[in-house]
Amino acid sequence: MTPKRQRLRVNCFALSLDGYGAGVDQSLQNPLGVHGEELHGWMLTTRTFKKMIGQDGGETGTDDDLAQRGFDNVGAWILGRNMFGPIRGPWPNDEWKGWWGANPPYHVPVFVLTHHARAPIEMEGGTTFHFVTDGIHAALKTAKAAAKGKDVRLGGGVSTVRQYLQAKLIDELHLAVSPVLLGAGESLFHGLDLRALGYRCVRQTPTEKAAHVFLQREAP
Amino acid sequence: MTPKRQRLRVNCFALSLDGYGAGVDQSLQNPLGVHGEELHGWMLTTRTFKKMIGQDGGETGTDDDLAQRGFDNVGAWILGRNMFGPIRGPWPNDEWKGWWGANPPYHVPVFVLTHHARAPIEMEGGTTFHFVTDGIHAALKTAKAAAKGKDVRLGGGVSTVRQYLQAKLIDELHLAVSPVLLGAGESLFHGLDLRALGYRCVRQTPTEKAAHVFLQREAP
Repeated sequence: MTPKRQRLRVNCFALSLDGYGAGVDQSLQNPLGVHGEELHGWMLTTRTFKKMIGQDGGETGTDDDLAQRGFDNVGAWILGRNMFGPIRGPWPNDEWKGWWGANPPYHVPVFVLTHHARAPIEMEGGTTFHFVTDGIHAALKTAKAAAKGKDVRLGGGVSTVRQYLQAKLIDELHLAVSPVLLGAGESLFHGLDLRALGYRCVRQTPTEKAAHVFLQREAP
Repeated sequence: MTPKRQRLRVNCFALSLDGYGAGVDQSLQNPLGVHGEELHGWMLTTRTFKKMIGQDGGETGTDDDLAQRGFDNVGAWILGRNMFGPIRGPWPNDEWKGWWGANPPYHVPVFVLTHHARAPIEMEGGTTFHFVTDGIHAALKTAKAAAKGKDVRLGGGVSTVRQYLQAKLIDELHLAVSPVLLGAGESLFHGLDLRALGYRCVRQTPTEKAAHVFLQREAP
């Protein structure tokens, strides 16, 4: 049996109809930027998300299946710094430990891209945040080693995903396009010629709440 | 019974996943720009489209219903000049009479926005092309009068739709988002804050071939 190739995946990446992956003005109050939470309506009601935040219940079905699938066979995560927190520039202290509290939903090593070094933070439940200051290629190499053969999931945000797309390093990208107009924010597509970079839409699975589409890079 | 309000509608406006309504380099060979025809896959197989081009058969279902609905209660059309033809600048002669041949699929007055005056062209089947040189507001006023109480349909292209959106003149916009990446072309959304302009997504009807979404302006 051939072992599965280790991939860099983006899953459940929420976009507005007008192509924004986050609103403007990210802050402690608006982790996803202004109106950004509207992009995630399809996920917030799923059983997978409820479980992630320690609640019972939630809906099953395609949206939930796709939310769950995003966690399958993931051995490490990569996050842009803004996905880790709202702080910009040098770390003022070691107080900020991510958006999720003591037990974040990753449960594997998480590599945070930043220009500002910081010691790793071991959280409850198997998550350790590592801070990578030598760029996206180094982060991917380290994350793949840490994932021990499993896939690496790239969590975002928009700017980080764009950098990895531009470098042709993302193998699979699952976008969840919500029926919402943001009007402004961080555009995933603007100025990025995904077709020329070798990406194609290989599948779509629309639900009532989102148009799920799957992009893959063609073999070179 | 209150008469229906006369609306300016955009129907069946095809977009790529990355938000392009047409490819680059429109020409006689590529009326929709390079790869632009891929955006229209959902429509080309419908019964409504087959009938439009004089063929029998074609598929019925939601895609066909929406294609057909685009022609219901339409009393006049407005087209940007590039929707009428590939010629730029002054008209070299009167030879070009549109993309569709002697009997175009409009069957009502069609107002073509241009900077270059030209006498109206009466075609077979009820279509007359009128050339409007005094801007989008004047074109809409004239088209509404010609439509005799029915709606006016704005056919495109992207730049024309963007101008009417910016002016808050479009009442309803049906987008058909195809599972295709164009990578480059004319972006419908870039730099246009539809949310601030009062537009909302009021409905979505995904099919296997396209994510149909419906935008409306909120009452001011």
